[in-house]
Amino acid sequence: MKIEELNEGFYEKLLTIWEKLNASLELDYILRNAMAYLEEVLEAERSSIWELDEQKEELFFRVFSGGDRDKVEEIRLKIGEGVAGHTAMTSAPVIIEDAENSRLWSVKVDERTHFQTKSILSVPLLFREKVVGVVQLINKKNGGVFTGRDLRSVEMMCIPIATALVNAKLFKELEQTFMETALALADAIEKRDRYTAGHTRRVTRYAMWIAEEINLPAAEKKWLALSGILHDIGKIGIRDNILNKDGPLGSGEFETMKQHTVFGAEIVEKIHSLGKVVGGILYHHEKMDGSGYPKGLKGEEIPLFARIISVADTYDAMTTDRPYRKGLSSEEATKELEKMSGSQFDPDMVAAFLRRIPREVRDAN
Amino acid sequence: MKIEELNEGFYEKLLTIWEKLNASLELDYILRNAMAYLEEVLEAERSSIWELDEQKEELFFRVFSGGDRDKVEEIRLKIGEGVAGHTAMTSAPVIIEDAENSRLWSVKVDERTHFQTKSILSVPLLFREKVVGVVQLINKKNGGVFTGRDLRSVEMMCIPIATALVNAKLFKELEQTFMETALALADAIEKRDRYTAGHTRRVTRYAMWIAEEINLPAAEKKWLALSGILHDIGKIGIRDNILNKDGPLGSGEFETMKQHTVFGAEIVEKIHSLGKVVGGILYHHEKMDGSGYPKGLKGEEIPLFARIISVADTYDAMTTDRPYRKGLSSEEATKELEKMSGSQFDPDMVAAFLRRIPREVRDAN
Repeated sequence: MKIEELNEGFYEKLLTIWEKLNASLELDYILRNAMAYLEEVLEAERSSIWELDEQKEELFFRVFSGGDRDKVEEIRLKIGEGVAGHTAMTSAPVIIEDAENSRLWSVKVDERTHFQTKSILSVPLLFREKVVGVVQLINKKNGGVFTGRDLRSVEMMCIPIATALVNAKLFKELEQTFMETALALADAIEKRDRYTAGHTRRVTRYAMWIAEEINLPAAEKKWLALSGILHDIGKIGIRDNILNKDGPLGSGEFETMKQHTVFGAEIVEKIHSLGKVVGGILYHHEKMDGSGYPKGLKGEEIPLFARIISVADTYDAMTTDRPYRKGLSSEEATKELEKMSGSQFDPDMVAAFLRRIPREVRDAN
Repeated sequence: MKIEELNEGFYEKLLTIWEKLNASLELDYILRNAMAYLEEVLEAERSSIWELDEQKEELFFRVFSGGDRDKVEEIRLKIGEGVAGHTAMTSAPVIIEDAENSRLWSVKVDERTHFQTKSILSVPLLFREKVVGVVQLINKKNGGVFTGRDLRSVEMMCIPIATALVNAKLFKELEQTFMETALALADAIEKRDRYTAGHTRRVTRYAMWIAEEINLPAAEKKWLALSGILHDIGKIGIRDNILNKDGPLGSGEFETMKQHTVFGAEIVEKIHSLGKVVGGILYHHEKMDGSGYPKGLKGEEIPLFARIISVADTYDAMTTDRPYRKGLSSEEATKELEKMSGSQFDPDMVAAFLRRIPREVRDAN
């Protein structure tokens, strides 16, 4: 391939986008950027990146420029179906001059978007010679047709896009395995306590609701989730006879039970990179007025994660049955949270949770 | 930057290397490749990639072409020290015509390698404007000096190198956090059993020795390590009174205790991507002659990981003290392993372990 065959300035842009693409955090933003640039250079009306779902052998939109994203979110093309599916099947690029009269074309997307596809440039995203997706430019402006030069520009851009997609996927998979493993082990630890089946999962879910309501950044949300998953792991250090006692604990037993916050923090503390989750574990039984444990911290001395988990944890404890009492209804429990907002709980976290809960209860019914 | 300012064919090579760089598994191999290419194009005698150790604020060799790697492995440059350290400090490239007469130059590397550095081209590896390392080309052949054109070629190559280094680091960190978390939770679970402190860590270490002796591929070793870490987590499902009983277990109690293999597998089974570790957990008490549990599998019906862990697990059980007996010496225990090689254990795994153990015992003393 010769440089001269590429569009003007393409090379420099490619390198810039390449650099950015590898910072996977904002991957979607940068992919949109890359596609917007391709649209401009190639004078195309629209563009999209289809990603391959290997398990289902289907393509779905990873990036879709122009129009309503909602309308295309559910569109899936089988390998071999439509132009994108054909590109994925053959691993070869294709230039289509007149979509409606092409035997490859599928009307699926246009039907949803009320857009009229005319010309298409469709290029496979290859990683180690395997298709991982398809890039498409739609409708050359002024009724023109995409050229060989356009194709080469897109092919060039496809290299970093493909590798970035693969990298992001590998990273996400590892992250997910990590979370699932932590959850499985926390679940197993929880099972010793015969009254709290599913507690860990529910508390983590409730904490996520609050996180979404207060717009916690995505990276922080991951740490909070892990905090939620691990918040009670210290119970592994509590003996069966206390953990599973029928009826309320005596004061000595309760003091022992309180130690689960400290035990849990000790387990996690050893892992350098999990520094962010320790607070949520150690302090999830602190109260805003300083009457909690283990340290008696007050107000904002209590780390944010702990203030979130505290609300989630208490709500779940109130709404589940225990051997010596039946669980409260969601309404009763939210009233209790409101009553203790400010003294026991951070009012902002209670407010966030109360904003969210009606919708969740409605959706669950 | 204009294409014309780059060395001939550089652009195409860049794109190829870029694609490969993002497949992080063989990162070192590809980095060496990229540097070999730069050496050739720029007519340089040597080249290297220094990586920044952020914590220590030191540079170390990630790739070092030519000469003995052993000799440079321990070399570390502080930020600001030598040409590489200067490049890292200023984030700016530098071309040095005559190293010995440059005030920036440090003799550290040449002293070790008995090499004579003359000219240097030193370029920072930047990721989001932060230095992550330094690339250097050493000694332009025929006594020449590196040119501005050379510099631009190296700068171009630095973009994928920097991003690949950062990506690999992020991935490795996540992987390590994952392993450490699994180990911390397994440790915590193990602590309930007051006779087995450190058992999980030791078994995993022994399993790794065997893996190295039988040349298990790196990716498999990771799965085996996780299998070792998690091999006894099913003990979380065994009650305190059986787990911590003074003296040998009654037959009913022993049947319960055997269930830890099944419980452990059940916990991990739910995690789709951990399929590879289930066998090592479920079958680590199987015996080659079919007399083990839970299934009574025979010979190679027993998964490899389980055959490895079985040797590691038994050796550790034999060499640690229990309430009702003192642990065996390493010599006595290895004799026992030999005796049961073939009937209880896979002979190849025993042989691998026995090959390794003298060295480890010697190193420990």
